[in-house]
Amino acid sequence: MFSTVLIANRGEIALRIARTCRELGIRTVAVYSTADQDAPVVRFADEAVHIGPAAPRRSYLNAAAIVEAARKTGAEAIHPGYGFLSEDPDFAEICAAEGLTFIGPPPAVLARLGDKARAREVMADAGLPVLPGGNRTVDTVAEAVERASSVGFPLIIKAAAGGGGRGMAVVREPHDLPRIYAEVRATGQAVFGDSRVYLERYLDGARHVEVQVLADSHGGVVHLGERDCSVQRRRQKLVEETPAPGLAPKTAASLHEAAVRGVRATGYVGAGTFEFLVTGDGEFYFMEINCRIQVEHPVTEMVTGVDLIGEQLRVAAGYPLTLTQADVQPRGASIECRVNAEDPRRGFLPTAGTVTTFRAPGGPFTRVDTHLEAGQRVTADYDPMLAKVVVWAQDRRQAIARMQRALSELAVEGPGVQTTVPFLTEVLAHPRFLDGKHTTTLVDEMTAQA
Amino acid sequence: MFSTVLIANRGEIALRIARTCRELGIRTVAVYSTADQDAPVVRFADEAVHIGPAAPRRSYLNAAAIVEAARKTGAEAIHPGYGFLSEDPDFAEICAAEGLTFIGPPPAVLARLGDKARAREVMADAGLPVLPGGNRTVDTVAEAVERASSVGFPLIIKAAAGGGGRGMAVVREPHDLPRIYAEVRATGQAVFGDSRVYLERYLDGARHVEVQVLADSHGGVVHLGERDCSVQRRRQKLVEETPAPGLAPKTAASLHEAAVRGVRATGYVGAGTFEFLVTGDGEFYFMEINCRIQVEHPVTEMVTGVDLIGEQLRVAAGYPLTLTQADVQPRGASIECRVNAEDPRRGFLPTAGTVTTFRAPGGPFTRVDTHLEAGQRVTADYDPMLAKVVVWAQDRRQAIARMQRALSELAVEGPGVQTTVPFLTEVLAHPRFLDGKHTTTLVDEMTAQA
Repeated sequence: MFSTVLIANRGEIALRIARTCRELGIRTVAVYSTADQDAPVVRFADEAVHIGPAAPRRSYLNAAAIVEAARKTGAEAIHPGYGFLSEDPDFAEICAAEGLTFIGPPPAVLARLGDKARAREVMADAGLPVLPGGNRTVDTVAEAVERASSVGFPLIIKAAAGGGGRGMAVVREPHDLPRIYAEVRATGQAVFGDSRVYLERYLDGARHVEVQVLADSHGGVVHLGERDCSVQRRRQKLVEETPAPGLAPKTAASLHEAAVRGVRATGYVGAGTFEFLVTGDGEFYFMEINCRIQVEHPVTEMVTGVDLIGEQLRVAAGYPLTLTQADVQPRGASIECRVNAEDPRRGFLPTAGTVTTFRAPGGPFTRVDTHLEAGQRVTADYDPMLAKVVVWAQDRRQAIARMQRALSELAVEGPGVQTTVPFLTEVLAHPRFLDGKHTTTLVDEMTAQA
Repeated sequence: MFSTVLIANRGEIALRIARTCRELGIRTVAVYSTADQDAPVVRFADEAVHIGPAAPRRSYLNAAAIVEAARKTGAEAIHPGYGFLSEDPDFAEICAAEGLTFIGPPPAVLARLGDKARAREVMADAGLPVLPGGNRTVDTVAEAVERASSVGFPLIIKAAAGGGGRGMAVVREPHDLPRIYAEVRATGQAVFGDSRVYLERYLDGARHVEVQVLADSHGGVVHLGERDCSVQRRRQKLVEETPAPGLAPKTAASLHEAAVRGVRATGYVGAGTFEFLVTGDGEFYFMEINCRIQVEHPVTEMVTGVDLIGEQLRVAAGYPLTLTQADVQPRGASIECRVNAEDPRRGFLPTAGTVTTFRAPGGPFTRVDTHLEAGQRVTADYDPMLAKVVVWAQDRRQAIARMQRALSELAVEGPGVQTTVPFLTEVLAHPRFLDGKHTTTLVDEMTAQA
């Protein structure tokens, strides 16, 4: 096993990774920007290296500074977490060139699957159902208009390099196509440094269901069941759960099987997530694969008992998975709520300020992953997620009651700081959510009514 | 189900009970002493009633004030937690007379089993093995000397009304008998208002293993496996775990069966714990039954997924248990560490002061039950337990590593406040503990060496 791992991330996920490293006897190196100098992971890690100012391009996206920190501290491997450099094939290449193990799939696999248009093509070839949209990016408005006529409306334009819900927009009317095409290209270029886009038929009223997979370098592949992440605002997840409510066992099994087939077809190694859209009829379509750990991985951990970060580390070090498919025996139900510094009444606009009081929930079957502490400043420099509250229960109804209890304990107070908590409690009490009949449009409908 | 429950306790267990009540839709009433006016449960509960000054006899042991608070707030039931009035048959009787449901076994059962000498007799009659000691209390020194000659040395003198590790002492030499007999009688009188004592053969180098049971008023009885609580200082538990390490499956099954037999023989209803001593040869002896929820109940919850407080509430409301024996499928291993405000280098002397910093561990498979918050004063008025840190893992080795990680995150700071945390990390790293070969003398040996 590695003796030292550098964690190229911040926030709750940096602490999450450091926790498992410590449990495995691995020395940890945290890196931090000036804005994060008082972060818990800086204190918790065995060593911490300052890598730049707050702006991500000069710190958490600064490959050179991160590699230098690894060299200086004797780290043998880099865990990139999620976001930032986690799916960047160039960074994975740089690590390899420097003799550092990048904890994620091989660079070539990242390059192929990180490009969403190519991933779509690869998975279609592997026999996974994809929505109509053609197998290439469109590079001119004329091409987009032509492709649209065969795809049909509504359709969605997606940045090939997009991720985290950014770089995609729905087009409902043909006359909006040129404008939205230009907007998504611009977002792709600005946010991901890549203006290529592709088109896909858009499904109203579908559910977002994803499958967690783990693969080692010895041919071992397992899935760890699915997660429903249909509660989204602006295509960013707010509430995630497992098992997916109302999913027919046959459909669930087909999704799991499709994900494993996708892994085997691509030589994927590490932890990954296959995202699908599932219709009310149980039809499903591959959307994309996330080549990294997901924000919502704890719900899978709660029902399976598997430490996903631990498996990532083992696989990256060349060990086989500690489990076979028969060992994966999910139990009960788990829900995660993302507590974001956002104002749901104003389009989930990020809020900022200093947190004067922070109280996390505790007690039975309740897990909190957070980097928040009283006294911290919440800024616009980074993702507005403050904490993830995760509960487990024997069934979904009890899990919802437990989450409501947990959220009722949570306190994040400070001038200017608002959170998604009041909105989350509304979601949990919404009749369609309670019935498990909600789709990806639930949040839009709730906020439109307000 | 009850619509309102009063929680006649303080500290972490009061909050623990309030959490489950909220999840079940039950309104909660907290009661608090002047010293506890800022406690989290006072804020969390739906209503809170001040019942007296810090001294337990005038607040948490003040049955009249508690019953009056229940009357005033419309509570239908009282959950007594552990300690205080939780095993007091008179209090259970008062509740019944006032039309309040006491959440625990019926008063007659409490009276019979709360008297440790009688419980011993009842269980011996039910066929459970007990240590030599005779079936009655001894009421004079002469009687004690006579009984001792048939029991043999070493022996232990126990207060019939004792509990929580108080009111018992080992006698190794006959000439110490009169003095220790007098001491235990005095402690029994002072602490429990009952000077009766009984004798029992004392086993050196045995393990403390207990079995959690649940019984409803419809004849439903289940056990939820065992807990090893051999890491004790002054017969008070410091570290608890399940499953018991190194316990032969056959011995474990015999213990479980004995506990269920004991329940059926006594008409027990509610949650209870059968405590046994187990020798290295797998011989076991009934010691006592705790007629209430235990401090260490979370480790059982972690491996079984059962909310024990929820089952207590349901059973007390007359519902059958939600589970049968076949539903109890323990998974993995769980450990609890008690973080006490005590100085292990000075005989676990309680420490006091104001806590300026408190940081609880979080993340995967980690549970914290606590009432502690920064700014709180730790006083000698109550039990020195500040927090319970509980972890789960797929096996004991991983659970120990996880607990070490969790304790490494924990911070309790403040002038004068010392905790058991450094000592706990030593226990977890002790070769005999790691091997699972430790007995109830481990802590004494560790502190004697220091």
